[in-house]
Amino acid sequence: MVIRYPNGQSGVYDGGKKQNMQEKQLPPKTYANRGMRFEEAINESNLYYLNRQIAVIHKKPTPIQIVKVDYPRRSAAVIKEAYFREASTTDYNGVYRGHYIDFEAKETQNKTSFPFKNFHLHQIKHMENCLEQNGLCFVLLWFSSLQRCFFLDSRSLIEKWYLQDSTGKKSLSLAYIEDIGIEIKPKIAPRIPYLEAVDSFLTIKEND
Amino acid sequence: MVIRYPNGQSGVYDGGKKQNMQEKQLPPKTYANRGMRFEEAINESNLYYLNRQIAVIHKKPTPIQIVKVDYPRRSAAVIKEAYFREASTTDYNGVYRGHYIDFEAKETQNKTSFPFKNFHLHQIKHMENCLEQNGLCFVLLWFSSLQRCFFLDSRSLIEKWYLQDSTGKKSLSLAYIEDIGIEIKPKIAPRIPYLEAVDSFLTIKEND
Repeated sequence: MVIRYPNGQSGVYDGGKKQNMQEKQLPPKTYANRGMRFEEAINESNLYYLNRQIAVIHKKPTPIQIVKVDYPRRSAAVIKEAYFREASTTDYNGVYRGHYIDFEAKETQNKTSFPFKNFHLHQIKHMENCLEQNGLCFVLLWFSSLQRCFFLDSRSLIEKWYLQDSTGKKSLSLAYIEDIGIEIKPKIAPRIPYLEAVDSFLTIKEND
Repeated sequence: MVIRYPNGQSGVYDGGKKQNMQEKQLPPKTYANRGMRFEEAINESNLYYLNRQIAVIHKKPTPIQIVKVDYPRRSAAVIKEAYFREASTTDYNGVYRGHYIDFEAKETQNKTSFPFKNFHLHQIKHMENCLEQNGLCFVLLWFSSLQRCFFLDSRSLIEKWYLQDSTGKKSLSLAYIEDIGIEIKPKIAPRIPYLEAVDSFLTIKEND
């Protein structure tokens, strides 16, 4: 699927615009930066974990549909026409102490709830499939206005996500996330120490 | 890192040219098709496994460095300038019955050995990191002239790969692969039933 941008504009790509721009009609630059900071913090945390041999978790590249490529003599191939495609999975996966790790990182400017529209059906399906295979699936939720980050088990998200049409509730309340999720306090390094939340989650699961 | 193509040429992209073209100076079209058939067979096998809830394994998108994007009013964003980047991981990963699965699929036209140059240092390092985290890492080796496919545990590959400079041996002999690897007989569906080899490998490992 090709992603359509709401407003006509042209410029130099600085990554991550795509998903953010789908949500609201703000100029790409501003909106992209907002989204990028959380993503960057996670990417840096992954690098921290990788360098210390704590875990191997990578962000998947953005899927691109390539249409035209030039192969100039003696220089790098240049992609001349390509389009963003929608990812069929979550953004992050990898391995941590024998566990398959799979997650999506999302943020909101809301102060009291996290909108379900941040998660698409194909991502929900992907998480269900991974859970079925005993993968460890979760989401990292960033409330940018509150500067608070939460780990939420995918099972808790999926259950509520499917109920949104019948209940009419289009978001997860912060109260629910505080109750069911695990708060992650940002640090200097790793910036988002999400594997601490994973450890807590595993401990809770083992004692169940 | 930007990938440079050996011969000047321009055309419509049909995927997978990149890696194949690095190896030999053959016209992109021919060479790409040769590489694509094996990759396609694996992608179809992954879809087979996914649809039957046997495993969740995806090929990672090709990493692209985006330089320029046009956002025409009311139509899809068009990437106007971008470059291929070298992947920092292997191409495939996912989860199978609680196991983190990570592999690279490569092919050769050689009839008696598999050249080490198909595997780059960063891929070897990535496999080492995943093994350290108890991931299940392997390579699928396709001898296109022989139409034979093998599963080879990454540990066996890595050990020999590092020895190539001291021994001067620049490839794995088919005899070694036949001895240490597990042959995968292509089927109608899934076309490359590599999870059967994974099962055999897990059984051997458990009995060790």
